[in-house]
Amino acid sequence: MHIPATLVRGGTSKCWLFHQVHVPADRGELARMLVAAYGAADPVELDGVGGATPTTSKAAIVSASPAPGVDIDYLFAQVGIGDATVEWTSNCGNCATGVALYAVAKGMVPIAGDRTRVVMRNTNTGAVLEGIVDTTGGVVQHFGRQTVPGTRAGGVAVDLTFRDPAGGTTGALLPTGQAAQKLPVHDAEPVLVSMVDAGAPVVLVDADGAGRGGSETLDQVRADVPWLRAVRHAAAPLMGLVEPGHAPGDAVPKVGLVGPPVPYTTTLGEQVAAEDYDVSVRMLSMNAPHPAIGLTSAVALAAAGLVKDSVVHGIAAARDDGWLRLGTPAGVVAVRCSDVRDGRPGRVTVRRAARLLADARIYVPDTGEQRAA
Amino acid sequence: MHIPATLVRGGTSKCWLFHQVHVPADRGELARMLVAAYGAADPVELDGVGGATPTTSKAAIVSASPAPGVDIDYLFAQVGIGDATVEWTSNCGNCATGVALYAVAKGMVPIAGDRTRVVMRNTNTGAVLEGIVDTTGGVVQHFGRQTVPGTRAGGVAVDLTFRDPAGGTTGALLPTGQAAQKLPVHDAEPVLVSMVDAGAPVVLVDADGAGRGGSETLDQVRADVPWLRAVRHAAAPLMGLVEPGHAPGDAVPKVGLVGPPVPYTTTLGEQVAAEDYDVSVRMLSMNAPHPAIGLTSAVALAAAGLVKDSVVHGIAAARDDGWLRLGTPAGVVAVRCSDVRDGRPGRVTVRRAARLLADARIYVPDTGEQRAA
Repeated sequence: MHIPATLVRGGTSKCWLFHQVHVPADRGELARMLVAAYGAADPVELDGVGGATPTTSKAAIVSASPAPGVDIDYLFAQVGIGDATVEWTSNCGNCATGVALYAVAKGMVPIAGDRTRVVMRNTNTGAVLEGIVDTTGGVVQHFGRQTVPGTRAGGVAVDLTFRDPAGGTTGALLPTGQAAQKLPVHDAEPVLVSMVDAGAPVVLVDADGAGRGGSETLDQVRADVPWLRAVRHAAAPLMGLVEPGHAPGDAVPKVGLVGPPVPYTTTLGEQVAAEDYDVSVRMLSMNAPHPAIGLTSAVALAAAGLVKDSVVHGIAAARDDGWLRLGTPAGVVAVRCSDVRDGRPGRVTVRRAARLLADARIYVPDTGEQRAA
Repeated sequence: MHIPATLVRGGTSKCWLFHQVHVPADRGELARMLVAAYGAADPVELDGVGGATPTTSKAAIVSASPAPGVDIDYLFAQVGIGDATVEWTSNCGNCATGVALYAVAKGMVPIAGDRTRVVMRNTNTGAVLEGIVDTTGGVVQHFGRQTVPGTRAGGVAVDLTFRDPAGGTTGALLPTGQAAQKLPVHDAEPVLVSMVDAGAPVVLVDADGAGRGGSETLDQVRADVPWLRAVRHAAAPLMGLVEPGHAPGDAVPKVGLVGPPVPYTTTLGEQVAAEDYDVSVRMLSMNAPHPAIGLTSAVALAAAGLVKDSVVHGIAAARDDGWLRLGTPAGVVAVRCSDVRDGRPGRVTVRRAARLLADARIYVPDTGEQRAA
């Protein structure tokens, strides 16, 4: 097989995008195709186009959407690394910015002046997102100067808006009905957490009460991974994500520490002052410290910032202009809630950047061809 | 810019191949293009097609050769990682197998029955190599079942032959004129070594006489790195590679332990019996334990196996079919000397595998375009 695909960078992720017409419709066949294309069975993804890290072993299947008011459907795939499987339960906001740029660049939506709106539906979760893509001069931009924390590389500006993100997985912004609560944790002290479902189900731990600051280095967060895993295991059944006594998968709920702003140095060596941001945050991604923050987690923090008595609101409320600035290891990510009704955000927006890296045809071994050769 | 390129896996390396007609002729411009295409300035090569590891941040520029008897010229590039530079001084045998398959698949050499010979010149070093590419049935194979140690992935069989490799650096197969000798080592006991120049200059230490076995685990070899560095420092001036009293660079001479075959478990967990191979070998690569063996070091071991009284010959001579089987941490690598005259191999062949992974057009930002966007 020889399958067309486009490699995009969206924010701090790399993701191969496939048009749906070129790949199997059956989910099992599609997973086998992706595993073969990425070389996923191998821990270094040597025999394929995978990048062998969680942020570079991603894919999305893109298609024109049949849904009214939606331009593009995309199915997100987290492709295994040293593991011949594909995980289908999550979304990736970074990839969504790449999908928006791809949809414009490949002519799937008409260009509309200097800024082109792409309405996307993530078919894994049902979430609807809008990408506003820079099309200055009414033409496709392939390169740009917009940056995001975590890389100095420029890209095309894409503002990504999550529409009505609260309760997407569990039906409620606060799945336990509480803004914050003491969570008993196996083999550890109870911790004060807010369990929030917006963008993704997320457990936010009050760092201060847990003897941390929320602005730890990645190495310090790494040392806390077993403890933070225990926290998410304790939270998952309370959020209705698993039956009591069962362990959650690695993708959700997401978990992290939040704390007050303090001066710190980013992983790229830049100095950040306490007044440059509102909340410190250190998230895990697939049981490892996230180098910045997943966009769905950023949405959850923004939504939690609207909830009185949440662990985020206790540290900072959104500023007058609606933006909440998150201090992540890689730098400051600004996120904005708007269209707020009954304490739930109708829209949450993050400013991002994306770039097409390569258009390709991928040689995909399949069992039959391997046997024949 | 939008530059055509093909991603290949050769053995245990991934390498983007560019046809010379599509890239700048000027070496400085070419380096800038590769740095931009790979995102090399960034430690994770996020904004480009680089793989962010030494074995996946490689490129080669391929062209029809003007040299008589040579089909293909290739210029090998080791692209920096977190470092906006390109290193041009070395060769890569793994990439050469990918170049051979590419040359056949892209029609640069005519297919000749079931096995097609591609004569290649590495323009970095001047080395001439032959790839014999599996073209069973007189057609291009895109997939195959041949494997190499270090990965379970199958590929198209490519036998890679180094032509007349002895003395390439120092002018002599045995730079000291001796098959084996006791080498005094600073702060350590003298060791019995063979110093051989074939493929690359290599110091082979008799493991048994040094209280080792030659079949150590990678961790055990790691503990011996300081000692093995002292051995190569002692050997380098005797081989004429540096002036006495000066330390060699990290690349050559290469150094490793050789010993008798014993049962062991590979790094992929496979059991290897003593009768499955002829010589145990544990090499260093850039002062770290090599996960398998560099192809140029394999050539040196094969050539040493021809030399009566060398530390390799004392363990095993080549088998009747000419193949010498090397037991490396990742598995067994078979290497064969032929066309032997006066004890020097005219040809040394390694059985490898390669596969085309993707044909692409890479979007390469250049300064002008980034400013314009």
